[in-house]
Amino acid sequence: MTLKVYIDPISEPSRAVIIFCKINDIDFEEVRVELSKRENVSPEYKEINPMRQVPAIVDGRFKLFESHAILIYLASAFPGVSNHWYPADVFKRAKIHSVLDWHHSFLRRGTAGYIMNSTLAPVVGRPLNPQAAAEARKLLSYSLSKIESFWLKGSGKFLLGSNQPSIADLSLACQIMQLEVLDEKDLNGLLGPHKKVQQWIEDTKYALRPHFDEAHKAVFTFLERWKKQSSRGVNNETESLSKPALRANM
Amino acid sequence: MTLKVYIDPISEPSRAVIIFCKINDIDFEEVRVELSKRENVSPEYKEINPMRQVPAIVDGRFKLFESHAILIYLASAFPGVSNHWYPADVFKRAKIHSVLDWHHSFLRRGTAGYIMNSTLAPVVGRPLNPQAAAEARKLLSYSLSKIESFWLKGSGKFLLGSNQPSIADLSLACQIMQLEVLDEKDLNGLLGPHKKVQQWIEDTKYALRPHFDEAHKAVFTFLERWKKQSSRGVNNETESLSKPALRANM
Repeated sequence: MTLKVYIDPISEPSRAVIIFCKINDIDFEEVRVELSKRENVSPEYKEINPMRQVPAIVDGRFKLFESHAILIYLASAFPGVSNHWYPADVFKRAKIHSVLDWHHSFLRRGTAGYIMNSTLAPVVGRPLNPQAAAEARKLLSYSLSKIESFWLKGSGKFLLGSNQPSIADLSLACQIMQLEVLDEKDLNGLLGPHKKVQQWIEDTKYALRPHFDEAHKAVFTFLERWKKQSSRGVNNETESLSKPALRANM
Repeated sequence: MTLKVYIDPISEPSRAVIIFCKINDIDFEEVRVELSKRENVSPEYKEINPMRQVPAIVDGRFKLFESHAILIYLASAFPGVSNHWYPADVFKRAKIHSVLDWHHSFLRRGTAGYIMNSTLAPVVGRPLNPQAAAEARKLLSYSLSKIESFWLKGSGKFLLGSNQPSIADLSLACQIMQLEVLDEKDLNGLLGPHKKVQQWIEDTKYALRPHFDEAHKAVFTFLERWKKQSSRGVNNETESLSKPALRANM
């Protein structure tokens, strides 16, 4: 029975799982759960993931959600996945867990909080919240500076000084790509001071070609649609497009 | 060389790591990093954990932070740790990762956000924030309801229907114990509707006796000190006591 992968490409952890499957030649069936249509809150999807988020997988009778858990499961259960993605060595593996846990409370939280409160709140029917945006931006800037100064130290091109990417590179890089929804000046202001982060994103794109770029086309498509809609004013279609997409991905 | 464990008992993930070591007879040296004295931002501690949080460990030349990563490392690297803490079975292990990842964005975030904004903000020099508190309380209540209805379903006493506790039980139960800083009525209002959660906490305490209760004495001591200080009004000592303790634990 083929692995089923439930995703919406607009969600950054969904993209991480899809890219991982493709780069590792894992045979899977992609099942779209369109957040813009609130398909994630349908009774059918509740049977797949009672938390109603994407991504989720069903492998035979085994169901799993949370993208980091999924990536680890795929790396562990599917033969042919190269060791560098999730090394068997207990020390290397521990460091990857450390990055992934850190990511939850810092980069992910800063990114999601900043994008919502600085830019996209109106399209989900809420006012912009400059104070919350400022706090989230601090957390985001802090997170980027820690990636630059700590997680990317060492001789390798990738996180933890590795010469090849791990699931941590994949997860964090997909998160940073979500910043593309910001305007160019703001994006440059955030990433500009972090040359190693910029180079690492480029190296990750290259290492994961063509799947990384292909998966991120969805973000750019979303961005273009959203900008067009914004220029016409907030409307129902926009709200429908954006509301669940930005709140229902882990 | 003995394992060094850097902790402050006021931090819930610190307690989880200490309890884990004790229940599994792991030989370790406890190194206190007093958050109330800002020892976590000292140059010496930066060498241990550049993120300046507790807990952290040093095992020979190997350094690690983030409590979930530490618990997994200890369960994997130290002989004699029973399989139920972090099962070798790929499916059971995946489910434990799923709980732990979920915990980051839900129970932990709800608990920390609610305690800070409803109760302790004044002692760190910030006003209470009723709106942020209400949002965090919703997340906390939602998280408790999901533990009740989903993570605790099944025939066993513990999370994921298990008959014996895992590192997920330990981490989540320590987090819930942090709610003891709330007043009794509020605590009852939060936990009252969740009978299975209450029973699970009792079962976890019993399974981890006497270490679970011993480790939580620190919370009650903190609570008593804080309540006495609050009744005298906010002062520098209170701020010194509380500020880092509630912000620097992961």
